[in-house]
Amino acid sequence: MVLEVHGYLLSPPVLRVIACLKEKELDYQFIFVDRQAEDNKKEPFLRLNPFGQLPAFTDGDLTLFESRAITQYIVHAYADSGSQLAPEDPKAMAILSMWMEVEAHQFDVAASKLNYELVIKPMRNMTSDDKEVAGHEKALVKVLDVYEERLKVSQYLAGDDFTLVDLHHTPLIYFLMRTKSKALFEERTHVVAWVRKILTRSAWSKVQQLIPQNIVVPS
Amino acid sequence: MVLEVHGYLLSPPVLRVIACLKEKELDYQFIFVDRQAEDNKKEPFLRLNPFGQLPAFTDGDLTLFESRAITQYIVHAYADSGSQLAPEDPKAMAILSMWMEVEAHQFDVAASKLNYELVIKPMRNMTSDDKEVAGHEKALVKVLDVYEERLKVSQYLAGDDFTLVDLHHTPLIYFLMRTKSKALFEERTHVVAWVRKILTRSAWSKVQQLIPQNIVVPS
Repeated sequence: MVLEVHGYLLSPPVLRVIACLKEKELDYQFIFVDRQAEDNKKEPFLRLNPFGQLPAFTDGDLTLFESRAITQYIVHAYADSGSQLAPEDPKAMAILSMWMEVEAHQFDVAASKLNYELVIKPMRNMTSDDKEVAGHEKALVKVLDVYEERLKVSQYLAGDDFTLVDLHHTPLIYFLMRTKSKALFEERTHVVAWVRKILTRSAWSKVQQLIPQNIVVPS
Repeated sequence: MVLEVHGYLLSPPVLRVIACLKEKELDYQFIFVDRQAEDNKKEPFLRLNPFGQLPAFTDGDLTLFESRAITQYIVHAYADSGSQLAPEDPKAMAILSMWMEVEAHQFDVAASKLNYELVIKPMRNMTSDDKEVAGHEKALVKVLDVYEERLKVSQYLAGDDFTLVDLHHTPLIYFLMRTKSKALFEERTHVVAWVRKILTRSAWSKVQQLIPQNIVVPS
């Protein structure tokens, strides 16, 4: 059975899925979707995801979209392979589930918009909007303040083990650490220690080698 | 063990958790949090949820926030009670997980903002912004078009059984069906049939009796 990932390698949600596959030591086939040509908004891609968003994923006759649903499937369907990434105990799983919701509804909202302003816009020769950046940084600070308190009592967000929720953060943190917003992480002792741990995992090093390195980032 | 729900009864995420408890036929204690007095932004509530959002939930020594993490915990921890709400097969679970992400990232974003304009603002004697409403309705239409296609091939979003993802939609659909935006649901044959099924469940009738009925809705 060949696992397929459809996407492109500068998309944080696509990298989230690839990072999960690397952690689980699973082989996969990467199918490039040309986002600049808007191939994700056309057939045949719309048959994989009617919303036209990346990534899409297949495992035999199963087709999935939404990166966090894909990673959860991989973790449960391939439980015996690679890193564990999710606990079995229902209460521990509930804590993980809660922090995954926080990532999706709090962290990602601010971090994605900052990534757009500080990474994507410069790549497209567009100018970042300082007022937008300030607003999103303010929102991110609120989240990182909660993370700092949380990381005082546990090594990772869902407990003392690296899990899916830490992995879900990795791509956007990787990009933001190359921008001026990295200061927000570095100002917080426990947050920056966590960032170092998640960015230096061997699975992430393998993902990093796949990311085009010609990203323009303002100094 | 007493399950506790902390919140107030006009909050869709709070009602999502209560709907799940009613489906699972579980008793719980409701603890009112005065949102107008901003008690959710103060201690002791911040000890339950450092983000100050409703609901919070406790089951003995387990404290959770984020409504969708709470419902998933209830479904798994109390699998033998009431309606099933989630399949056991990993592929079927992945399909459910995917549609739950769609609800959270596509449906909820548009529907919550419409609810704010068309239900919450009138309740607070504020005027709805027609331009905002038009924008959010446009976003909602895109989601409902995908749902209409999906509901042609399955009775509910994740398959032929009512599951958590249908339940997650119920509170906001209940409120929106009392506004002019109900036309968007009614124009779509399969969507409106699904809406009727989820709003007439016996568990939801019990929830509905708890909702203050003095909601001002523009005709």
